[in-house]
Amino acid sequence: MGQDQNPDGKPPAQATLHEVRTAENSAAYLLPKLESMKESNPSLKLLDVGCGSGTISLSFAKLIPDGHVTGVDVNANILPRSRANAETAGVKNIEFQQGSIYELPFADETFDITCCHQVLIHIGNPWDALREMLRVTKRGGIVAAREGDYETECIWPELPGLGKFHKLMAGLMSAGGGTPTSGRQLFSWALKAGAEPSEVTLSYSTWSYHTLSERKICSQGLCDQLRGGGMREKALKFRLGTENDFEEMAKAWEEWAERDDASLAMLHGEILVQK
Amino acid sequence: MGQDQNPDGKPPAQATLHEVRTAENSAAYLLPKLESMKESNPSLKLLDVGCGSGTISLSFAKLIPDGHVTGVDVNANILPRSRANAETAGVKNIEFQQGSIYELPFADETFDITCCHQVLIHIGNPWDALREMLRVTKRGGIVAAREGDYETECIWPELPGLGKFHKLMAGLMSAGGGTPTSGRQLFSWALKAGAEPSEVTLSYSTWSYHTLSERKICSQGLCDQLRGGGMREKALKFRLGTENDFEEMAKAWEEWAERDDASLAMLHGEILVQK
Repeated sequence: MGQDQNPDGKPPAQATLHEVRTAENSAAYLLPKLESMKESNPSLKLLDVGCGSGTISLSFAKLIPDGHVTGVDVNANILPRSRANAETAGVKNIEFQQGSIYELPFADETFDITCCHQVLIHIGNPWDALREMLRVTKRGGIVAAREGDYETECIWPELPGLGKFHKLMAGLMSAGGGTPTSGRQLFSWALKAGAEPSEVTLSYSTWSYHTLSERKICSQGLCDQLRGGGMREKALKFRLGTENDFEEMAKAWEEWAERDDASLAMLHGEILVQK
Repeated sequence: MGQDQNPDGKPPAQATLHEVRTAENSAAYLLPKLESMKESNPSLKLLDVGCGSGTISLSFAKLIPDGHVTGVDVNANILPRSRANAETAGVKNIEFQQGSIYELPFADETFDITCCHQVLIHIGNPWDALREMLRVTKRGGIVAAREGDYETECIWPELPGLGKFHKLMAGLMSAGGGTPTSGRQLFSWALKAGAEPSEVTLSYSTWSYHTLSERKICSQGLCDQLRGGGMREKALKFRLGTENDFEEMAKAWEEWAERDDASLAMLHGEILVQK
């Protein structure tokens, strides 16, 4: 999902966390299918919906050098950063534009692959989004989605501030109309979007932070958000916590980063829908 | 963990669930290390602790044809089945014997690899078990453990009987002295067993049932246990449910197996400890 560029031009706090994402670490479930489709059609057209700052999109573009990637995000403010990231990476076969997942600015059957990552978890009618993703996908193409299942979040050690943070995040997702248990519901949403059961392939995978460098990236990103990012503003607006609460949570993340035995993991649901 | 052979000689109810386990689907985190150790020493000695009916042990034995596998289980009653499974598979480089994870019947530094799967989650002092596993492992060898994190269990659809079942299982684990959140605690237990942080590698992986055949195996195995297995007896003994509750849970598992959109997934923690 989109992130705002800070007024001072620095990358937004979330970027530290989100820009480690690539097709390889966040869409591994889709890559065998993409590779087999590429064999018969090297000029695949791929749409990445809710592309944010575009690191996943541009790694897809590297995988299909004779193809083309379009990244779309509802938040136009993030797009200069997406384009800058693509330029820094030297990726040319890509473009970014503003658009809503509910009303994608493309004709029917435009793309071979239409995918999203951590987008449906934040929105109110994910089945409508999947139906719209199916609309812009060619017959014989694929719609792919990977979404966290926030209720499976698994944190050690069990510091009270981290428990509060978990509740804050679930509260923010729900307050925004999202679904914390998205991962487990993806298959049912695909059916609600009109797919037949035989057209949907489900899988689960894991994502975790546990090495020292991963813990530092995670802790720093979350502390930045708790002490000054957009998440803090939203949480205050929805009365999901006080400034003291946020400081307790940030201190807990700092303590967590220092612990050798600390880790954070979560299950992700994944679907491939054959159109 | 061990399972009793039924008096009529049929495989125990749990076997349906447990005997799909192999080194490939249950110890993938260990295989690259095993392969690299095998290159320099093809005659690796591997100990599988809490081997149960031995399907993981015998698939390890196939991977090290010039090596040797020993399977140990605290429950001597399961061992005829373990031996029969090895014989059926035509695996010769394996033996099974009775023994406790707290007091392994082997000299110091006997094995190159000592591993367990879904064992520490059931016992009271998992760090003592890891210390004992380290004792019987050679210097330069590896201790490996993979354990579920039951609090991350992720079930769809959310039928009330399945919610009750989740609580029953967590209650049974705790009543038996086990730790439902084992997956996330493995690293800390390795430190408590005497390992240095730099000697421990942590990872997480997923395990799930969602295809029709997987759902049938899972549902049938759990229904058998709820309607007549040892789990039911234990649950009645610890007053964790009534016969009506167990029937409600079994019916919910039957309904779950029929649903196209149904799935069950769980996070597993994994450690490799370099001795």
